Amino acid sequence: VSLLELPTPCLILDVSAMHRNVGAMMRALRPHRVALRQHVKTAKSVEVAGQIAEIFDSRAITVSTLAEAEAFVEAGFDDVLYAVGLVPQKVGRLCALAESADVAGIVDSVEVLAAIAAEVTCERPLPLGIEIDVGQHRGGTGPESDLLLAIAEGIASQPRLRLWGVVAHAGHAYDAADRAGIIAVAEAERKGAVRAAERLRAAGHVALHVSIGSTPTALFGASFEGITEVRAGVFVFQDLFQSALGCAAKEDIAVSVLTAVIGIRGDDLLLDAGGIALSKDRSMDGRGGGYGELRTLDGGPIEGAPRVHSVNQEHGMASVPGHRLKVGDRLRVLPNHVCMTAAQHDHYWALTGDGTATQWPRIRGY
Amino acid sequence: VSLLELPTPCLILDVSAMHRNVGAMMRALRPHRVALRQHVKTAKSVEVAGQIAEIFDSRAITVSTLAEAEAFVEAGFDDVLYAVGLVPQKVGRLCALAESADVAGIVDSVEVLAAIAAEVTCERPLPLGIEIDVGQHRGGTGPESDLLLAIAEGIASQPRLRLWGVVAHAGHAYDAADRAGIIAVAEAERKGAVRAAERLRAAGHVALHVSIGSTPTALFGASFEGITEVRAGVFVFQDLFQSALGCAAKEDIAVSVLTAVIGIRGDDLLLDAGGIALSKDRSMDGRGGGYGELRTLDGGPIEGAPRVHSVNQEHGMASVPGHRLKVGDRLRVLPNHVCMTAAQHDHYWALTGDGTATQWPRIRGY
Repeated sequence: VSLLELPTPCLILDVSAMHRNVGAMMRALRPHRVALRQHVKTAKSVEVAGQIAEIFDSRAITVSTLAEAEAFVEAGFDDVLYAVGLVPQKVGRLCALAESADVAGIVDSVEVLAAIAAEVTCERPLPLGIEIDVGQHRGGTGPESDLLLAIAEGIASQPRLRLWGVVAHAGHAYDAADRAGIIAVAEAERKGAVRAAERLRAAGHVALHVSIGSTPTALFGASFEGITEVRAGVFVFQDLFQSALGCAAKEDIAVSVLTAVIGIRGDDLLLDAGGIALSKDRSMDGRGGGYGELRTLDGGPIEGAPRVHSVNQEHGMASVPGHRLKVGDRLRVLPNHVCMTAAQHDHYWALTGDGTATQWPRIRGY
Repeated sequence: VSLLELPTPCLILDVSAMHRNVGAMMRALRPHRVALRQHVKTAKSVEVAGQIAEIFDSRAITVSTLAEAEAFVEAGFDDVLYAVGLVPQKVGRLCALAESADVAGIVDSVEVLAAIAAEVTCERPLPLGIEIDVGQHRGGTGPESDLLLAIAEGIASQPRLRLWGVVAHAGHAYDAADRAGIIAVAEAERKGAVRAAERLRAAGHVALHVSIGSTPTALFGASFEGITEVRAGVFVFQDLFQSALGCAAKEDIAVSVLTAVIGIRGDDLLLDAGGIALSKDRSMDGRGGGYGELRTLDGGPIEGAPRVHSVNQEHGMASVPGHRLKVGDRLRVLPNHVCMTAAQHDHYWALTGDGTATQWPRIRGY
């Protein structure tokens, strides 16, 4: 299948670019001798995760949904951290996976522990990581908080639960102004997780895993001392937002949306990639805006780096001064935030060096 | 299955509210004796479209993707307008459907006609509607343009093509300031389509169909004289944006996202419905903002109508002063723009009056 035969719009995965991105993460982490627990929420693909697992020689993964956990355990990934706050109703499905894999959840409250324990059906105690807030203030408890020790004691008091370790995510790295800012956030992420683990150990708890990560802090962190593993996901594909942060060159963005021109009025183009195909992510607001950057069919740049400036459900609008396109011609769109754009699609068309495109399914739902 | 057993996040469809919305459209259109060609892009559901088809006694549909066209023809819908600008590469799939259904595409350019004709494989000529620009300036040609007649002549000159009629969509009704503004846009939509059809007929062409529509102009249009059919889709579910336009009461919004509270910090809630479950549509910016309005598990209002104020991929953040929720409790989120929110999911859980929930699949892809 060639790019001219694929139905539009569709999701294109440049496997060579993906390998470059995986190599960049390998070079960032290897000097620190820290393990990668890849976050599969970006790609949601057994094929993609399988290649990363081989390159890093680690089948440990992070998931954001139970649907991911189930699909990856089925595919033989046997070490799974479900890194979204666990609620009692989700314990049963997690425990069902514990028959064939090491699975762990995360918590940041004492109140929920008894209700979680009541739902545990696996023979071995269910491991729970404590979510540490290292500055994003989304979830988690502070490394110096009393709550941290209270949660650990709560877990210890429940025979059906055991402590997995600490789990921190510096999501606020995305708000950093520059690389120095990211490096500072990365160090705060590391210090917070290490400090939390130290306090737990001083109180007599076994905090085996000290887990941190985001793509920017994994790529730019200066030290990983005391850290047992790094979680990152977006790095595998990269996107315009990561490129604006300095985490990747635009040429390394591995995923794009193939689109056809369906209307022309002078410089203005109407595309068949709209809000559903691109997502309505607007993380590039303030950085040129829009819903993605137009590229040629081959993925090459277009003068002025035109953006899809507006979208309806199945229509994208862009302006390309002096273009020579005609209705039916094809272009590509680089994603603002690839996790959101990829989530709009059921599969990738994976392009390999020999010019062939193969369908790789994406895991969907919850 | 009850609401407490469903996996979260998931898409809930209140079938009674849907019936109220369908009734409202019936009451709006019936006095004008104009037919409905329902737009299935909102629901993308054979079950939903089947109920509307029965109530309106019409199996004519509008689609936004070939995947919809194929699924609906397979389900017995035999009169399909593909209302996104047709490109040569998509003609083959459309023609394959012409074996078992009346199918038509739309065009707004002369240049593409020969290329489209070259791809026609059906025995009968492929019907093409001419897209009329009635003020949205997205696609289409003006009712008074020379291009209008040139396209009709171009179609007439291709034996494999024939003229279906004219197709107008007043998407700019969504920018209207108030109901009077919508009524004015509706009249411009009607006049533009009727005028285009008159010019075509005066030039000797047969313009059988005079098709207009959007949910606001269909509900509020004062006259449909000269119009053969109205296209509308969002009306079946409604959403916060339609409610802000005055097209529906919030209590009639038929689709919501069921979500679980996964974290609590005082008034601040963390939810398991994030950017993927809700979409990142921001059409309520300037109208309270956010990514959807929080409701109780039963769908009732919460004081202050709190919004999901920010989202990450699988996390939603909201603030509900004085709440008494605990981790694991469930809430619902009304969508900003239901076409986008529903598109994030693979199926509905359809709630009927007897309290049961049934899975209705959604059509996906292209």
